[in-house]
Amino acid sequence: MTGTETLFTNISQLVTPGVGMQRGAAMRDLNVISDAAMLVRDGVIRWVGPRAGAPGNVPEHDLGGVAVMPGLIDPHTHAVWAGDRLADFEARISGVPYEEILARGGGIRSSMRATGAAGVEELVALARPRLEALRTSGATTVEVKSGYGLDFDAELRMLRAVRALQAEFQLVPTLLIHVPPTGGRAEYVQAVCYDLIPGVAREHLAAAVDVFTEREAFTVQESRAILQVARTHGLQTKLHADQFHAIGGTELGCELGALSVDHLEASDPSQIAALAASNTVATILPGVTLHLGLPAAPGRALIDAGAAVAVGTDLNPGSSPVFSTQLALALAVRLCRLTPSEALTACTVNAAAALGLSDRGALAPGQRADFLALHSADWRDLPYTLGASPVRQVWVGGNHV
Amino acid sequence: MTGTETLFTNISQLVTPGVGMQRGAAMRDLNVISDAAMLVRDGVIRWVGPRAGAPGNVPEHDLGGVAVMPGLIDPHTHAVWAGDRLADFEARISGVPYEEILARGGGIRSSMRATGAAGVEELVALARPRLEALRTSGATTVEVKSGYGLDFDAELRMLRAVRALQAEFQLVPTLLIHVPPTGGRAEYVQAVCYDLIPGVAREHLAAAVDVFTEREAFTVQESRAILQVARTHGLQTKLHADQFHAIGGTELGCELGALSVDHLEASDPSQIAALAASNTVATILPGVTLHLGLPAAPGRALIDAGAAVAVGTDLNPGSSPVFSTQLALALAVRLCRLTPSEALTACTVNAAAALGLSDRGALAPGQRADFLALHSADWRDLPYTLGASPVRQVWVGGNHV
Repeated sequence: MTGTETLFTNISQLVTPGVGMQRGAAMRDLNVISDAAMLVRDGVIRWVGPRAGAPGNVPEHDLGGVAVMPGLIDPHTHAVWAGDRLADFEARISGVPYEEILARGGGIRSSMRATGAAGVEELVALARPRLEALRTSGATTVEVKSGYGLDFDAELRMLRAVRALQAEFQLVPTLLIHVPPTGGRAEYVQAVCYDLIPGVAREHLAAAVDVFTEREAFTVQESRAILQVARTHGLQTKLHADQFHAIGGTELGCELGALSVDHLEASDPSQIAALAASNTVATILPGVTLHLGLPAAPGRALIDAGAAVAVGTDLNPGSSPVFSTQLALALAVRLCRLTPSEALTACTVNAAAALGLSDRGALAPGQRADFLALHSADWRDLPYTLGASPVRQVWVGGNHV
Repeated sequence: MTGTETLFTNISQLVTPGVGMQRGAAMRDLNVISDAAMLVRDGVIRWVGPRAGAPGNVPEHDLGGVAVMPGLIDPHTHAVWAGDRLADFEARISGVPYEEILARGGGIRSSMRATGAAGVEELVALARPRLEALRTSGATTVEVKSGYGLDFDAELRMLRAVRALQAEFQLVPTLLIHVPPTGGRAEYVQAVCYDLIPGVAREHLAAAVDVFTEREAFTVQESRAILQVARTHGLQTKLHADQFHAIGGTELGCELGALSVDHLEASDPSQIAALAASNTVATILPGVTLHLGLPAAPGRALIDAGAAVAVGTDLNPGSSPVFSTQLALALAVRLCRLTPSEALTACTVNAAAALGLSDRGALAPGQRADFLALHSADWRDLPYTLGASPVRQVWVGGNHV
């Protein structure tokens, strides 16, 4: 619809958070306009308001009397992988300990072997239906991480697959420093800092660098070194923090001004307070809670403390086979005690902020015209519905996709 | 495909439980045939086995190299309702107590008012997309209960709506005695026994009678009276039992030879032992666990004790807006600790047994040709996938629907 102007009409409810990151109680402040209209020109929203006050002499598109809200933004996925983890899944549910699954050749290293053996084209073909599923569920912008590379070449192939898929989807690529080597850690971190990150920055293959800061992964000191180098190359920073143990990743992220720290299942009141006092988004991933049966991140406590919370699928084969951003939103309500309004804010403007984006996530003049039309006239069907899609249409930049 | 014979080929895995109700460890005994074929004539399976041993000279249908399993059977839904419970949902999540929601005019009585005000045609139109969603998710047979009727006429309208929908779906109707009147309980139970049940039986509007046996609903004594009358009219029996309190509903169901007792979140070892010693199916409903955040039914303990477990969506607007039988199966694995194999058995032959049906639920000669073809070559994608449908095709009586 580039170059044209369209007035979208017959919107039972136009529902949106405010523009930009929303924290604490402000996450509940949705603007709900009944019998609304929205003017879009060149893929950008120019006006929203009650139908009765809409500009005249503009071609109209009737949305059928349903609820409209911003397209969802999924700020945390590992959507590029090869191989599968079905045998791991069955073994784990049957009570086989993770150590034994690893000994059988399963676990994350099986994903790394399969991904490392795949070329860019194969990675693209494998990721495409996953990204289509996320888009069908309502996601108009999706972050995708590397991190299953056995070596730097494999990491670059993952990021090149994301770049290829950017022709079809709005994707934000992240370089994830995920699994430390079994030996030579110091050399590995040096190589990440002085070989991998500069190369990724030079080729503009990632918008941010993410580090898995955890007892079994990278220390706070290693994470700090990596993220400081990322910043010198103009890259944004993120952390996987407090997933199993709160070893200081959240505090590091807040100190460095990271866009987000993600997971937070093991965060205690001191990490929650640090996030509330920062501009770093707290990204929670309830699919992991459901799939692995582990404790949920303290979404309710984070918001009550004043933090800005975002929600993502964490789509990945081992810990969150959640192929729907709408389901992640719905799970955040059930498992992390977000209200429906908070969950919508978490999956729109706050998820955008977690990706460093301020041009999307709200339905307001100047924002991208990325929006959803539901099957229903009541927007709350979006957080309410489980197991079927409440989303009838997905619009990206003013175009129905 | 009635009157014709078809050999379905190019099946990566044909996966099926044994014919008939499976209990305890037998729930894990799936038959998995690699590179399989299946012969169907007149809507009935005539032969299954390895492709190499298939009968010749039969028209073939290539299923594309994917996994095939029995159609799912959803043994517990309340798919016919009018109105919505979105305001209740939002209020509950925001911390409003249920008593306050009731005082605002919400809760189950709001569903009863809206359903009572709807005609049969409206109920049909409202239920159709829900049943389509369940079928898309893989359900080829679905039980549907009455129970939101404000009076007997409304109950009959609900059952007539189910009858009308039987032209489009394979449905099993159940008369549910759900909500006691605020006064005149004894007269109400008498009227159920000597007016409602005989009328329903005369018109063949239900296959079974179900009673909600619970502190806030019907006593064991009332339930016994109702279910005994049901049996004298040739109707099968079921109970909603042990949902919040184990007041004796499960023991009553086992004593009366009920097809199933459903819910069981509050069952303790004595109810589990009673079920294991009976031929009554234990139907668990993990969607309620997810949606309301209440304890899960002891699925693992029931199977370990030797019971036959089935799984259903409990699709209803207040406590389980789960529009996917596949999601119910996937949730049973995560929330009730069933293995993937047990969950498939629970959603096929055991769900059929919970409905008194023995002609479906397995892929074996003599069974109805109700089956699913996945997108994937590995059947475990069915329990594994969250948020997207792993089901590519649904076949009912040998016909692609």
